[in-house]
Amino acid sequence: MARRARQSTTRRELVSNQILEQSAALFAERGVSGTSLQEVADALQISRTALYHYIGGKDELLATLVRGITQETAAALEQLAADESTAPLERLRLAIVDMVVRIASSPSRFRLLLMSESELDEKTATEHRRARRRTLEALERIVAAGVDAGALRPADQRTAAFALLGMCNWVAWWYRPDRDEQPPERVAETIAEIALAGLRAGDGRAATNGDAVGHALQLLREDLTLLERAVGARRAGAA
Amino acid sequence: MARRARQSTTRRELVSNQILEQSAALFAERGVSGTSLQEVADALQISRTALYHYIGGKDELLATLVRGITQETAAALEQLAADESTAPLERLRLAIVDMVVRIASSPSRFRLLLMSESELDEKTATEHRRARRRTLEALERIVAAGVDAGALRPADQRTAAFALLGMCNWVAWWYRPDRDEQPPERVAETIAEIALAGLRAGDGRAATNGDAVGHALQLLREDLTLLERAVGARRAGAA
Repeated sequence: MARRARQSTTRRELVSNQILEQSAALFAERGVSGTSLQEVADALQISRTALYHYIGGKDELLATLVRGITQETAAALEQLAADESTAPLERLRLAIVDMVVRIASSPSRFRLLLMSESELDEKTATEHRRARRRTLEALERIVAAGVDAGALRPADQRTAAFALLGMCNWVAWWYRPDRDEQPPERVAETIAEIALAGLRAGDGRAATNGDAVGHALQLLREDLTLLERAVGARRAGAA
Repeated sequence: MARRARQSTTRRELVSNQILEQSAALFAERGVSGTSLQEVADALQISRTALYHYIGGKDELLATLVRGITQETAAALEQLAADESTAPLERLRLAIVDMVVRIASSPSRFRLLLMSESELDEKTATEHRRARRRTLEALERIVAAGVDAGALRPADQRTAAFALLGMCNWVAWWYRPDRDEQPPERVAETIAEIALAGLRAGDGRAATNGDAVGHALQLLREDLTLLERAVGARRAGAA
């Protein structure tokens, strides 16, 4: 009896997940308002009545899709941001890999998310905005930790975090798990490599002696010299 | 008479452009199907009849918006890709700056584009896909030229091009020209710097784009950020 109950729970989860994947694909392709629950049922080869056995309606379906994606991503990144036992650069790499694998494994859900923001009910929209903010802030904390450790260049933190998010999120628009030759993990590695190289501090720029202010002043002096030389060369060229 | 005709053309263009901007903003915020032409007219404080003097209908309006954005971007990038008198790294920098400035100056139009793909008529959808493909291919050619010249790391070319597009396109989701402190040009510079560093071969501190003064200034800006952070941390520690 216990076993039968467990089997039925598993089956329920399986079907629910199929419904989520299929409706995400249809919503992303035709728009939420352009997709009826009858079409979702048809695509799954079940009746509309059977579909209602699993879901309460289109709004609930959309809310469940949105909740799953954004809140899981936010939680994963917050955990990484707080993990001080891992070096900042490695934390950044893991964050990028986590996001890209997540998106590349389920791109239609992510496309749907961006395309249907205007169609979310007030409660879901608020939750969604909060989860997006948590993700951004966690990523900013990871970048800041890297800059403080001298491992990352001090680029504008907000723009840098958004540039990273952009590289990852865009995967939803071009990667097709069923068609692409590369597995999600391979795409994730390539993007993490570009992201890390994009923000990594050059060899000479890491603070090694713990005197961050003195180090910053030293770099300023070096780079002023660099500027003077560059301006000098330009003048000489113009003369 | 000629002058009057010209003035009236200019006024027509001006109003048309206002209609495009306003409808893009409303479409992006509420969805295309969730926005009526009456609402567009109300937002512009003109009558619906006056609006029809400028546009044929909602489908035509959407088609015009889509055409303007994607085809101009594709043409600009193709021109850069073909410009062999400019060094490959500089071509890449110019491509990123061009895209980011374009997007940051008109983010709702770009958001609209992605959110309304499912609502485009067949002809517009085909044109749109073709323009997107031209943009991607031009960017891939620019990256390939950089790799051939030894200026860029030989990363997977397609993933690299999509990572660059992602950094740029994502600007439409976070940058607000009316609220943000940084002008579009500043955001474009930061993103171009991250993108170039992300793909550049060898020493990240060398000025490889031929603009030694600009590069030195970028390093100085980084130094100042680093100093501000170090001073901030020392103050926080002392408090």
